[in-house]
Amino acid sequence: MAAVESYPMKGGDGTFSYVKNSSFQKSASSVVQGLISSAITEKFDVKPSATPTTIRLADLGCSVGPNTFTAMQNVIDTINTKAKSLSCQNPQYQVFFNDHVGNDFNTLFTSIPSDRAYFSAGVPGSFYGRLFPDSSLHFIHSSYSLQWLSKEPKELVNKESEAWNGGRIHYTSAPRGVVDAYARQFSEDMELFLGERAKELVVGGMMVLIMPCIPDETVAHSQVPAGIMFDLLGASLVDMAQAGVISQEQVDSFNLPIYSVSPMEMESLVKKNGRFSIEKMELTDPTSGRKNNEGGSKTSGDGNAIANHLRAGMEGILSKHFGVEKTDELFERFSKKTIEFSDKFKSSLKQGTQLFIVLVKKN
Amino acid sequence: MAAVESYPMKGGDGTFSYVKNSSFQKSASSVVQGLISSAITEKFDVKPSATPTTIRLADLGCSVGPNTFTAMQNVIDTINTKAKSLSCQNPQYQVFFNDHVGNDFNTLFTSIPSDRAYFSAGVPGSFYGRLFPDSSLHFIHSSYSLQWLSKEPKELVNKESEAWNGGRIHYTSAPRGVVDAYARQFSEDMELFLGERAKELVVGGMMVLIMPCIPDETVAHSQVPAGIMFDLLGASLVDMAQAGVISQEQVDSFNLPIYSVSPMEMESLVKKNGRFSIEKMELTDPTSGRKNNEGGSKTSGDGNAIANHLRAGMEGILSKHFGVEKTDELFERFSKKTIEFSDKFKSSLKQGTQLFIVLVKKN
Ligand SMILES: Nc1ncnc2c1ncn2[C@@H]1O[C@H](CSCC[C@H](N)C(=O)O)[C@@H](O)[C@H]1O
Ligand SMILES: Nc1ncnc2c1ncn2[C@@H]1O[C@H](CSCC[C@H](N)C(=O)O)[C@@H](O)[C@H]1O
Repeated sequence: MAAVESYPMKGGDGTFSYVKNSSFQKSASSVVQGLISSAITEKFDVKPSATPTTIRLADLGCSVGPNTFTAMQNVIDTINTKAKSLSCQNPQYQVFFNDHVGNDFNTLFTSIPSDRAYFSAGVPGSFYGRLFPDSSLHFIHSSYSLQWLSKEPKELVNKESEAWNGGRIHYTSAPRGVVDAYARQFSEDMELFLGERAKELVVGGMMVLIMPCIPDETVAHSQVPAGIMFDLLGASLVDMAQAGVISQEQVDSFNLPIYSVSPMEMESLVKKNGRFSIEKMELTDPTSGRKNNEGGSKTSGDGNAIANHLRAGMEGILSKHFGVEKTDELFERFSKKTIEFSDKFKSSLKQGTQLFIVLVKKN
Repeated sequence: MAAVESYPMKGGDGTFSYVKNSSFQKSASSVVQGLISSAITEKFDVKPSATPTTIRLADLGCSVGPNTFTAMQNVIDTINTKAKSLSCQNPQYQVFFNDHVGNDFNTLFTSIPSDRAYFSAGVPGSFYGRLFPDSSLHFIHSSYSLQWLSKEPKELVNKESEAWNGGRIHYTSAPRGVVDAYARQFSEDMELFLGERAKELVVGGMMVLIMPCIPDETVAHSQVPAGIMFDLLGASLVDMAQAGVISQEQVDSFNLPIYSVSPMEMESLVKKNGRFSIEKMELTDPTSGRKNNEGGSKTSGDGNAIANHLRAGMEGILSKHFGVEKTDELFERFSKKTIEFSDKFKSSLKQGTQLFIVLVKKN
């Protein structure tokens, strides 16, 4: 198995923990619960014939909860409803919670709802490698995880390369060569991902992927929410280098292994793999759920919320490179910038920055 | 699912961690590796017909390693050898590592050998409840876990009861009423255990259980290794109560939820359950592996080793009741006593204090 770099979300349940700062992902996924339910109702084979009927589900990149529990319960509820409408018995369920080996599985396991009606298991390891036996899964779900590349493209730190990315930490607002290096890495990773999943999923099995995206190639990365955040984070680091708190070299050698794909790009990668039919591919608005449910009282565009959200996800990778103390200062600076730019951020959170995909494994 | 008390082994890899203090269990299980291999070779159905062939194994009460990895690898190697001798392809394997939800699964997952040839998953939860879907396992292994009762028998702390166990922390050297209360609890727990496993194991599936035992009812509990340790631990607590460090009431209200069964008792519990055939039931010497492999240079009878061994397993339950500081003092006192009594302990480690059982699920 290839070595994969791992930067787990912040474990435990402290102020900056993922548990307490995953409401963006939560609102993002509540938008798609309905879409997932429709996909299951229309296309998922509940297989009433096999005995004993156990349906095996996996959530890839589940982090420590709670979103993964909501997502899995929604899938199960929908399958049960479908089974009932076909007058079959409810199947048994086994849910596999996957994330990097460095993920805080202890916290995850403590949080699994005690009234669940499924058997649960944790599966440590990268989803860019094999995780499950042949044809052993019926349903795969992955939300806001596939934007993480297996590693940063090496060319980015090579001064001789067209992809040299000095003074930036991401391909946002970067020259073509940098964007291309990221796109190549994403394409390689996706090839691995789809290849492994094709082995693990039964024929007719369903895979639902939710990920940040750009609507199409004409939209600048610097205008989408992730791009805005990464630009502000990068600017905060550049400020720190100018103030002499960190070195320029430290900024030059750091790059976020994160990529937002476009629907067209994703479609061509799935077709290249060839083992899945595309049942649905749709752009959605990650915040529409929040607006509907919470009356906009606490939008995801709040400066502090953005900073804490990003911190829960990125503290690991940043403090590894810059040190723990510098990371504290970084987030103070970043938090100020997000407040300043919060209008821009809010207006970027619109239809078309989240990709929802339903794939079915071909015969 | 009934609430079950949980006292996980000491996690992490510090001085008193289970990882560093499980050599007794290791030597105990190395004795039985050969026995397990024979049982598989003679009785385990490698099911070459089903496609895809995935054999699912579970280790119940696996703790944090490393013994569980050795045990699982031995099972897999033996099945592969058998499959080869029958000219079938090697099956794929999925290993489920089970322990209480409070177990340190983060440490476990970090230690899973990277060169393993199996898919792995962690399953949190008590083995006195359901853990897996119907007929989803082919092989179940449990070593040195089933001596842990689901809870301490309530009668022990009732002054009016015949089972009142004031001034002691175990049934060792206790009146009949106390021993009976422990035996009843074990029998109830085993009924649950066998009932749930019968649902989870496929017909023809194999279950191997290794547990501390007394050879027969005529042997005093105070003469077997576990009994000697618990007597010394209890005596150390009584000393502390007499010195006024802890209260008598604290000693009276504490009881170790641990039981050593006899082969006859176990046989009758398996027969009562009725879903398994007994393919083998054998008394073995838990230390013979160590004597053979390590030339007796570092026997399990060493005072400090005993104290650390017991501490890795019992620190959780003791510090919960007596507090962390008192537990430090307790182990200092206990350690002195184990050195004093190490000859008695060593000579108790003889043939017949470990029960090895092979069950096969009936049609
Ligand atoms: N290659 C990989 N294999 C497994 N997990 C990965 C991964 N790359 C990233 N992740 C995980 O993906 C998660 C992204 S955070 C999203 C968590 C969750 N799906 C939710 O919607 O709330 C992190 O926990 C991260 O550790
Ligand atoms: N009801 C229960 N359910 C699951 N695990 C249990 C349990 N009762 C005890 N255990 C676990 O059993 C383990 C006993 S220590 C033995 C560990 C391992 N089998 C070895 O041989 O090295 C502990 O980790 C404890 O947490």
